[in-house]
Amino acid sequence: MTVLPPPGSPDIDIARAVKPWPIFEVAQRKLGVAPHALIPYGHYKAKLDLAQIDATKQGKLVLVTAITPTPAGEGKTTTSIGLTDALNSIGVNASVCLREPSLGPCFGVKGGAAGGGRSQAIPMEDLNLHFNGDFHAITSAHNLLAALIDNHIHWDNELDLDPRRITWRRVMDMNDRALRHTLVGLGGPAHGQPRESGFDITVASEIMAILCLSEDRKDLQRRLGNIIIGRDTSGRPVTARELGADGAMTVLLKDAIQPNLIQTLEHNPALIHGGPFANIAHGCNSVMATRTAMGLSDVVVTEAGFGADLGAEKFIHIKSRISGLEPDVAVLVCTVRALKMQGGLAKTELDEPNLDALSKGVVNLERHIQNMQKFGLNPIVAVNRFPTDSAQELTAIKEVCLKMGARVEEATHWAEGGEGAKAVAEAVKTVLETEEVNVNYLYEDAQPIDEKIRTVATELYGAADVQFNIAAQKQLDEIHELGFGHLPVCIAKTPYSFSSEASELGAPEGHVLPVRELRLMAGAGFVVAICGDVMTMPGLPKKPAALNISLDDDGEIVGLF
Amino acid sequence: MTVLPPPGSPDIDIARAVKPWPIFEVAQRKLGVAPHALIPYGHYKAKLDLAQIDATKQGKLVLVTAITPTPAGEGKTTTSIGLTDALNSIGVNASVCLREPSLGPCFGVKGGAAGGGRSQAIPMEDLNLHFNGDFHAITSAHNLLAALIDNHIHWDNELDLDPRRITWRRVMDMNDRALRHTLVGLGGPAHGQPRESGFDITVASEIMAILCLSEDRKDLQRRLGNIIIGRDTSGRPVTARELGADGAMTVLLKDAIQPNLIQTLEHNPALIHGGPFANIAHGCNSVMATRTAMGLSDVVVTEAGFGADLGAEKFIHIKSRISGLEPDVAVLVCTVRALKMQGGLAKTELDEPNLDALSKGVVNLERHIQNMQKFGLNPIVAVNRFPTDSAQELTAIKEVCLKMGARVEEATHWAEGGEGAKAVAEAVKTVLETEEVNVNYLYEDAQPIDEKIRTVATELYGAADVQFNIAAQKQLDEIHELGFGHLPVCIAKTPYSFSSEASELGAPEGHVLPVRELRLMAGAGFVVAICGDVMTMPGLPKKPAALNISLDDDGEIVGLF
Repeated sequence: MTVLPPPGSPDIDIARAVKPWPIFEVAQRKLGVAPHALIPYGHYKAKLDLAQIDATKQGKLVLVTAITPTPAGEGKTTTSIGLTDALNSIGVNASVCLREPSLGPCFGVKGGAAGGGRSQAIPMEDLNLHFNGDFHAITSAHNLLAALIDNHIHWDNELDLDPRRITWRRVMDMNDRALRHTLVGLGGPAHGQPRESGFDITVASEIMAILCLSEDRKDLQRRLGNIIIGRDTSGRPVTARELGADGAMTVLLKDAIQPNLIQTLEHNPALIHGGPFANIAHGCNSVMATRTAMGLSDVVVTEAGFGADLGAEKFIHIKSRISGLEPDVAVLVCTVRALKMQGGLAKTELDEPNLDALSKGVVNLERHIQNMQKFGLNPIVAVNRFPTDSAQELTAIKEVCLKMGARVEEATHWAEGGEGAKAVAEAVKTVLETEEVNVNYLYEDAQPIDEKIRTVATELYGAADVQFNIAAQKQLDEIHELGFGHLPVCIAKTPYSFSSEASELGAPEGHVLPVRELRLMAGAGFVVAICGDVMTMPGLPKKPAALNISLDDDGEIVGLF
Repeated sequence: MTVLPPPGSPDIDIARAVKPWPIFEVAQRKLGVAPHALIPYGHYKAKLDLAQIDATKQGKLVLVTAITPTPAGEGKTTTSIGLTDALNSIGVNASVCLREPSLGPCFGVKGGAAGGGRSQAIPMEDLNLHFNGDFHAITSAHNLLAALIDNHIHWDNELDLDPRRITWRRVMDMNDRALRHTLVGLGGPAHGQPRESGFDITVASEIMAILCLSEDRKDLQRRLGNIIIGRDTSGRPVTARELGADGAMTVLLKDAIQPNLIQTLEHNPALIHGGPFANIAHGCNSVMATRTAMGLSDVVVTEAGFGADLGAEKFIHIKSRISGLEPDVAVLVCTVRALKMQGGLAKTELDEPNLDALSKGVVNLERHIQNMQKFGLNPIVAVNRFPTDSAQELTAIKEVCLKMGARVEEATHWAEGGEGAKAVAEAVKTVLETEEVNVNYLYEDAQPIDEKIRTVATELYGAADVQFNIAAQKQLDEIHELGFGHLPVCIAKTPYSFSSEASELGAPEGHVLPVRELRLMAGAGFVVAICGDVMTMPGLPKKPAALNISLDDDGEIVGLF
C-alpha cells in the first residue's frame, strides 16, 4: 500500500508518492471504456475517442461552486476531487469533470491547478504544462483566423473589410501585458495594413468558449463559422465563414475537441477539458466532457470557476441554457479563512481564531447561499477545513447555514483524501436520491442584453444599477440592431467581490456595475460585458514564479507547485 | 498484403491505404527499443525516453541534399525515406532522421511535409498538424522570455534594460506578415513600455536552433541561458540567464527535447525532430535525434533543407562543427524538371522533353557537385525520376555526373517505394563499406565573421563579393567587439538561386551578396546573416491553402495534402 507523505507536505511530494494506474486500466475499470477507444498521451493520460464510446447512462450532475474566494482559491477543484473520491468510497460510481489550467498563471503567481493535498488529479506536472495540447490548438486556430483577416485586407480585400473595425484580436497562452494594445502591419506596403489591435490570453478566446459549448465536431464548425470578425466599410458584420476560415480552424481543433482523461490520487476518472477563466469568460468544463462523463458514470462532479456569482451563474445561464445540462445538486465550498478575510482581516491574520471577523464575513456566505437558492439549488455547504480553524468558528458557520435552510458538512479531504469528504458525499447522495431539482433561470432569452446584465447585477451582486459607458452603450445598441439581443450575457469582472471593486468585501449593496465594453461572441453564443478594470490579458507580477522554476539534476520540475 | 493505390494517386490516399504497425512494434523490431522506453502519443507516434535507451552502435551517416529546388521541392524528404526503405530491403539496418513540418506553410501553399508517393512517413496528418507539440513548446518558451523582458522593464528594470535595444522578438507558428513589425506596450502606464518589436515564425526562433543543437537537457539550459536578449543602457549585452528565465524555459521544453518516432510506409523507423527552415535558419534535424538514431541503427539517413548551398553547407559548417556528427556519404537529389527550370523553362513547360533547356540547366547540378566535393564529399547523384522524363534527358544528366567524377543512379521510389531506390541504396552501401571520408570545413573558427560569409559566398555561391549595408556593418563590428567572432555563420537567403535573387538561375557568377542584417544567436552558437529580401516571418498568398482545408463527413481531413 502506498504510504503518503503527511498532510501539509508539498502537493508535488504527495502526487509523486502515488503510483498512477495505467490510464487504460482507469478507463476500463472505472468507466467501462475499452482500450481501443483511448488515444494515449504517455502512459497516464489519454484522449477519449468519442466515436468509439457508447455513453448511454443518465448520470446525475453535481455542481461545485464557492463563496467569494481569497487569491489562493477556496479549494473548489480540491473539493471536487475529494468529493468524487468520497462518492466512490461509499459505493457511488462517480467521475469528476474539471477545467484545464492555463500556462499564463503558472509562470505568474506560483501554483498549479490540479487540486491540492490528498485530493489531486495526476500527473499534475503534465496537466499544468502543455497537457495534451488543447490550448495550443486553440491558440493556433484563433491566430490562423487573425492571419487570414490581415491577409485578406493586404490583397484585394474583396469583402471590403474596414481595417478600423476588425474586432478579432490575437491570443497567446501567456501573461503578457505588453501585448494588450499593439499596432500591427507596420513597415511598409509589403507588410500589411497598419491597424490597432492586441492580444488576449488564450482562455479568453471565443474559440475556447466555442470548444466548451459545442456538442460535436459539426456544431464546432458551425459555431466557428458564426464568429463575427469585424465590419465591412458599410458597417455589415462579417463572419469567419465568409472568409472561408471555418474548415481549417476545425481541422486544427479536431483532436482538441476530444475530452482528456487522467485520474485522481485514488484512481477515479478525471475528465479534464476546456478551461476558460470564470472572471473573463464562462469558466466551465466542456459540454462534450460533461455529457460524456454523465453517459459513463452514475454521478458526475464538476466545478465552475471562482465564486458562485461568476462560475455558478454562468454555468446555469450559459452552459445549462445552451446545452440543457442542469445540476441536480450544488455544493458551495467555503473556508473559515476566506470568511475572516471577508470580515476585514489581512492574509497574515488568518491563523488566529477571530469570531468577530468571521461574523462580519459570513454575510458573504449568506448572499451566495441565497443566490444559489434563487436558482432553485439549495446548496450543500462544504466547509473545507484548515488546521487553523477553531471549533467556535466552525459552529458559527454551521449556524448561518442552518438559519438559511442550507445543509452544511465539514470536509477534510485536503488532509485525508476521499475519506475526509465522506460526510459531504453522503449528503450529496441523499439529495440525489430524494430530491428533484427545477433550475430557475433569472432572465429570459427575450429580455434585452442590458436588462439581463441588470438582472444579474441587482439580483445576485446586490447592485443598485448598471452603468454603460459611451462605448459600451454604442456596442449595446449595435448588438440589438444586429439581432443578437436574445443571447445570454457573460459578465467579466473581478472575482474578489460581488461588485466590480476587489476591495468591497462581504455582501456589498447599492453599488453600480460599470460596463466598459461589450464583446459579441456570435459563435460561442453569448455577449461578454467587461466591467470595472478586469483585463482579458493578465500581466506578470514584479517577481514572477517563472524565475524560480527549473529542472533539478534528476530532470524533475522544481518551483512550479 | 496491402494493395496500394496506383502511382500518381494523391499522397493521402496512399498513406491511408497502409495500416501502420503499432509504434511499440516499430521500436522493438527495428530499433531494439523496449516499450517502457517509449512515451506514446496515440497508437502510431511516440517520443523516445532517452534516459531509458542504450544507444551504443556506431552507425554511419548519410546526408541527403539537393540541387537548387523548384518551389515544389526536389524530393529530398521523399528520397531520404525511399532510400531508407531500400537500404532495409537490401539487408542494411537503417533509419531516417527528418525535420518536423511547420504549421505556417500548411495553411499557406498547399502541401504537407512527410515525403510523397510511396515514400512517405505516416501518420502524415498528425505529422503536419501539431505533431507531438514540440513547436508549440518552443513558441511558449520563446514568448515566455519575451514576456519576462517586457515585465522586467515595466517594473523596476533592475537590469537597466534599454527598451530601444531589445533584440528578442516574439514568435508564432503561422504565416502572418502583419506581425513582422509591431508596436507593443501601448495603452498607457498600466500596459508596459511602448517599444518597437515584431514576430518571426517559430522555425526561425533561436530556441528552435538551440533545441536542434543541444546534446542533452543540461546543454539545452546552458544554451538558453546564453541567449542575448538585448542591451542595457550602457550597451552591455544582457542574457536570458541574467533575467532568470532559463530554468522555466527548460521546463517548458522538457518533453520537446525528446525525439519523436513514427514509421515509413514500409514500417522502418523515422525519427522526426526539430524543424528549422534552411533558408532562414540552419535547417537540420536535431543532434539528439541523429545521435540517438546512429546509436540504434547501422545506417542513418538524414536530410538538410533546400539546395546544398543552404542545407548541406549549414549541416557541415554548423551541425557537424558543433556536434562532431559528420556525414560518411552525401546523396545529391536532382530532377530533370528542376534542371529544365534552371535552364529557363516555365513551370508549365516541364512536361515535354527539352534537351536544350536541360543542357543549359545542368550548370546548376555541376556547381552543387563541385561544392560537395569541396567539402570532401563526392556525392552520389540520385535522379528522382518523374514519368515525364525522357531517356535522352536522363543520359545527359548522367554524362555530366560522370564527367565531374560523381556517381549517379536513377531512383523511382516515388512510384515504387523502397524497391525503386535500390540502386542508390547499393551505391550508398558500397561507399560506406569501402571509402573513408574526411570532411573539409571551408572556414576556420578563427576567421572573422565577414570573412566566413565571404568564403561561403565566393567558394559556393559563385559571388564576387559580399556587401554589408550600414546597419549590418555596425552589427558586425559589435559582434566582433563582444567576442563572438569565432562563431560559424548561418546565411539566410532565397533557396531558389545561388545568389540572393530568386530569378538568377543556373550557376550565376560575379554577383554580390547583400547582407542587410546580422543576428547574433549566442545561445545557439552562430550568427545569422540575413541577405536580400528573405523574410523571417512569411506571408500568406492571395488564396491561402487554408481556404480549402476542412473535415469531411467522416471527420477525415481534406485539402491539406
